[in-house]
Amino acid sequence: MERGDLDRMAEVWLDDEISCVHPGWPVLRGRVDVLRSYALIMANTEYIQFFLTDVQVTVDGETALVTCTENILSGGPAEPDGGAGPLMGELVVATNIFRRTPTGDWRLWSHHGSPVLAGAEEDEAEDEPSEGP
Amino acid sequence: MERGDLDRMAEVWLDDEISCVHPGWPVLRGRVDVLRSYALIMANTEYIQFFLTDVQVTVDGETALVTCTENILSGGPAEPDGGAGPLMGELVVATNIFRRTPTGDWRLWSHHGSPVLAGAEEDEAEDEPSEGP
Repeated sequence: MERGDLDRMAEVWLDDEISCVHPGWPVLRGRVDVLRSYALIMANTEYIQFFLTDVQVTVDGETALVTCTENILSGGPAEPDGGAGPLMGELVVATNIFRRTPTGDWRLWSHHGSPVLAGAEEDEAEDEPSEGP
Repeated sequence: MERGDLDRMAEVWLDDEISCVHPGWPVLRGRVDVLRSYALIMANTEYIQFFLTDVQVTVDGETALVTCTENILSGGPAEPDGGAGPLMGELVVATNIFRRTPTGDWRLWSHHGSPVLAGAEEDEAEDEPSEGP
């Protein structure tokens, strides 16, 4: 993703019945729609860097559940004067489901990323009941 | 969820290593934190109704991937004068992973719900590249 390498991204995913939700997006299903969405994002992203935190992996048989927080720093296309586009920070939580293929590779079956919104911190909920999400 | 039945909700989930993301929330892990979050939401929700659309189920061995759109109509606590609280519509997409237990029951391993934000419609992306999510 950071290299904008769509071919490599295509290798990460299973061949069929995949699903993907980008933050704020509706669900996308199937390789054509999913890979097209990545091509679209890559085409509109000059710079993107992921700092993964809070990664947890659970394996059960041939399935792995990977949850993590994606601290994303990204920038849009360069300005007309040649300067760098505006940089933006974003906090996303992701749920990823991988399947182990007969060749032993782990490939992505489902990815779901969503924005963490202000006021929905877990710590606040521990103090006193709020109005929920 | 519509009946606010926390005991029944507890039966839906696997016993351990579960994860849950409510719309806009950080990731919650483990039965204690996940069930507490549902108790909190139920305590602050006078009325909630889910209209599920676009449901797709994919089964691979003992694992099932269920994606859907949740058209949610919900209302907060009643007003001081006894009138109904304000009703609110919300559009959420959900990714659910179920595992089949040795007794043959399907139980929830991971749930991830996220808001569908305006301007992120799939149809728009088909017309022309926008600025992404």
